[in-house]
Amino acid sequence: MKALSTLALAAVVATATLPASAQFAKPEDAIKYRQSALSVLGTHFGRLGAMANGKLAFDAKAAQESAEIVAFMSKLPWAGFAAGTEGGKAKPEVWKEQAKFHDLSDKMQAEVVKLNAAAKTGNLDSLKAAFGPAANSCKSCHDSFRNR
Amino acid sequence: MKALSTLALAAVVATATLPASAQFAKPEDAIKYRQSALSVLGTHFGRLGAMANGKLAFDAKAAQESAEIVAFMSKLPWAGFAAGTEGGKAKPEVWKEQAKFHDLSDKMQAEVVKLNAAAKTGNLDSLKAAFGPAANSCKSCHDSFRNR
Repeated sequence: MKALSTLALAAVVATATLPASAQFAKPEDAIKYRQSALSVLGTHFGRLGAMANGKLAFDAKAAQESAEIVAFMSKLPWAGFAAGTEGGKAKPEVWKEQAKFHDLSDKMQAEVVKLNAAAKTGNLDSLKAAFGPAANSCKSCHDSFRNR
Repeated sequence: MKALSTLALAAVVATATLPASAQFAKPEDAIKYRQSALSVLGTHFGRLGAMANGKLAFDAKAAQESAEIVAFMSKLPWAGFAAGTEGGKAKPEVWKEQAKFHDLSDKMQAEVVKLNAAAKTGNLDSLKAAFGPAANSCKSCHDSFRNR
């Protein structure tokens, strides 16, 4: 009886709640969302890169803040690539090669977790060591899935 | 001697590090940054509002995720309103009435901390109670400082 009520409730919730693909009212909203999230991510990732490459003085606290923001933002854009949201700078391959797209986005998220841990050490050499693989994880996804 | 070296080092760092107002290479970068951060915030705030107003089925987990994102994002846009970054939808009053602008942005951040705590209870009534004051804190800042 309890199992039945739970199932009945689940059915109601499933009907009433919008599916993940309908989190955005219009495809343009999803495009704007993913671009905004990636833009904020890119700003802070760029600062970390400038510190790693010596173009910006290393500031351990600022690096930690940026790495924390990068790690947080890295989780957000993917909901904006739901079915039916083709467009923007995204190549059609995003929706045609979903397994590869998910692999690369997972890889990026794993690398920025490491980058965040490296930044927390407050050590520039650790940041430099973690930055390269993280940057490559961005690039490999952009090369396959983003129009220039 | 140690104190002197520390001071000397501090002077070098202070010279080499960009001031907060120069975190962005161009004013357009700051405008894009603050708009992107506020856009991501707005997407999730809008979802919470839709749940609070019964336009979207209440999903406790989704509400918690959105409220967490709103609370995190609420800290970011302000660095993008540094001196010399006038433009976008921001009224000149942002830079002319800094004390008021900071008061209202602080108020918003305090309200979304409460909203986040309310969402964590998993209770729709708590979410509804916290959403109104949070929405008003957005509106009062927009009314004074954002062009329509």
